[in-house]
Amino acid sequence: MTSDHHSRLDADPAFALHRGGKLEVHSTVEVNDHEGLALAYTPGVARVCSAIADHPELVDAYTWKSKVVAVVTDGTAVLGLGDIGPEASLPVMEGKSLLFKQFAGVDSVPIALACTDVDEVVETVARMAPSFGGINLEDISAPRCFEIERRLRERLDIPVFHDDQHGTAIVALAALRNAARVTGRELGDLRAVVSGAGASGIAVSRMLIKGGIGDIAVADSKGIIYGGRAGLNEHKAALAAVSNRAGLQGSIESALAGADVFVGLSAGEVPEEVVATMADNAIICAMANPNPEVHPDVARKYAAVVATGRSDFPNQINNVLAFPGVFRGAMEVRATDITENMKLAAANALADLVGDDLAPDYIIPSPFDERVVPAVSSAVADQAREDGVARA
Amino acid sequence: MTSDHHSRLDADPAFALHRGGKLEVHSTVEVNDHEGLALAYTPGVARVCSAIADHPELVDAYTWKSKVVAVVTDGTAVLGLGDIGPEASLPVMEGKSLLFKQFAGVDSVPIALACTDVDEVVETVARMAPSFGGINLEDISAPRCFEIERRLRERLDIPVFHDDQHGTAIVALAALRNAARVTGRELGDLRAVVSGAGASGIAVSRMLIKGGIGDIAVADSKGIIYGGRAGLNEHKAALAAVSNRAGLQGSIESALAGADVFVGLSAGEVPEEVVATMADNAIICAMANPNPEVHPDVARKYAAVVATGRSDFPNQINNVLAFPGVFRGAMEVRATDITENMKLAAANALADLVGDDLAPDYIIPSPFDERVVPAVSSAVADQAREDGVARA
Repeated sequence: MTSDHHSRLDADPAFALHRGGKLEVHSTVEVNDHEGLALAYTPGVARVCSAIADHPELVDAYTWKSKVVAVVTDGTAVLGLGDIGPEASLPVMEGKSLLFKQFAGVDSVPIALACTDVDEVVETVARMAPSFGGINLEDISAPRCFEIERRLRERLDIPVFHDDQHGTAIVALAALRNAARVTGRELGDLRAVVSGAGASGIAVSRMLIKGGIGDIAVADSKGIIYGGRAGLNEHKAALAAVSNRAGLQGSIESALAGADVFVGLSAGEVPEEVVATMADNAIICAMANPNPEVHPDVARKYAAVVATGRSDFPNQINNVLAFPGVFRGAMEVRATDITENMKLAAANALADLVGDDLAPDYIIPSPFDERVVPAVSSAVADQAREDGVARA
Repeated sequence: MTSDHHSRLDADPAFALHRGGKLEVHSTVEVNDHEGLALAYTPGVARVCSAIADHPELVDAYTWKSKVVAVVTDGTAVLGLGDIGPEASLPVMEGKSLLFKQFAGVDSVPIALACTDVDEVVETVARMAPSFGGINLEDISAPRCFEIERRLRERLDIPVFHDDQHGTAIVALAALRNAARVTGRELGDLRAVVSGAGASGIAVSRMLIKGGIGDIAVADSKGIIYGGRAGLNEHKAALAAVSNRAGLQGSIESALAGADVFVGLSAGEVPEEVVATMADNAIICAMANPNPEVHPDVARKYAAVVATGRSDFPNQINNVLAFPGVFRGAMEVRATDITENMKLAAANALADLVGDDLAPDYIIPSPFDERVVPAVSSAVADQAREDGVARA
């Protein structure tokens, strides 16, 4: 790679912006003389270390541990790019850290791991956990991500949150609650079809069920998931047991006939003639990025409400609406876990912000709405206390 | 722990200074609108990720990896406090990060591990290495630290440096070179006795041998180390093979009779009557902190040059003179290793800074001398190129 090549890359503003990385570590204490050194480092620091050794809970007050999140990936499912490895995933992890800081003032550190075995990922994260107040799992492929998150939640007493699952799920539930409201219905009135049964597809489906959706059918590349379908992995089998009460089988196209809601989390395009078969007042959330499963211009012809993952159309379903506030709230109360109720509380807080401004093109706040993080974090913190997982 | 207890702790300025920790992560890029988000995060970031996946060396230019050091400990040998565990070690690791930043502008992240098995420490650090441009090992007990460092150096293509060993060794060699000069001798004229055969004792002894000291005898708690002494571990046996050419046996006290140099790295007190038996023009480096093996007021009665680890006496042997510049220099040229020559070059650069100001009470620059980091880093970078370990 020549410097000439670098100049060519830097002609793309995304490369120019990434040059040198996007993060820095700053110290909050100035050490300008021997006295300062003797307090911030030896011998003064030894007294702080001894106090923590004697009273472990002091680590939260006298180090940055309780304020800093590890943004952990193994590079196996980076954006839509797939398994590109740890180094190539770093720009996304740094971006996540940037968003943590800028949206919620949360410090975080990207940790991209050179291992993909589930046991190794779990062990590695557990071993570094003493340094961190929370673990944001990111871009880890399904179904491995489910077990990694479950085992780390069980093992660690700090929040562990796979954002690709739960961040998306929180924002999707908030959007659908308001989409139902703006079309004069309850969530319980709606029958939804979810395209995609990866990390986000499964998490969104589970959250919509917890949020009270009427019925939901989830499709993977082999069609609708139903109890007893051959070859289901344990996660899809478990989902089958709580979804698809109508017992649909076959293609996603057939399931969409008469459906009220389409949630796209797979990048699999849905033809216009299939969209046309949905029920009146349909709600379409086509979240694949940059190419939604149904283009918004097409979706609008048939649906009452259209949301996407893109910032250049109304109703952007963007994880940044959730994860900064969720971690901020959880860490402010030193939560030992992020419970399902805390995620529901985040979704409700997000939906409620829209308030009386609700309209078909405004079912979810903008990521730059400054009310978002305070509302989400305080809802999450309150719910943590209610669920008995708050330590402060 | 009550808030009342916190207030009492905070009456100690070291605690007040540590409250909330000493570090923050900042982003170098502002994201204020959808366009910024689309460049720093999706979809723009995907182009940067893809480029790195295709050309792995681009990770150095377009992420912070090549600029950020992991300050890694397992909490087994924290300052003089011993095995106090990972959480209680964090104030020291944060302090190290603070010093990295403030003295050399180097970004670093404290990683305290919840494992102490050598294989596990090595594996864990190797797995997180894709995120970092260097590994500073810290406060890991001997002899485990030797194997951990050796295996990580072999395995990783980034600098790995156990500061308790090599930082101390670099500064001690610089100090002794100038101590020899100010007393009109060459290093090769001097016979030294080192008290302590832990991480720093062994590393300092090896560096003094490489630096050309006349002879050196190293003592552990059982006395002088010599070839064939029963029960030596492999590291002490290897040291015995290259040290103690005089074949001394017995106590450190007997070895000190007629010795030119005492180097204390053990906190074991040396009685005044033993100090009195050293040769004329003796050099005493009593580095235990806060209680030097020989109090400087006593040492001055018998020695021509006295150095300690304390900031309130002249000639402070402080690691902060070495590690910030060593990492800065190594990382500026993307060194794949920190060679012995690079450490020697750092020691020489440090000694040379004293120049014509050399005096018995000024054999080593102050940590706050702003020439230190540029001199050390450029010597290290030049030597890395000469040794063929520089990639840039």
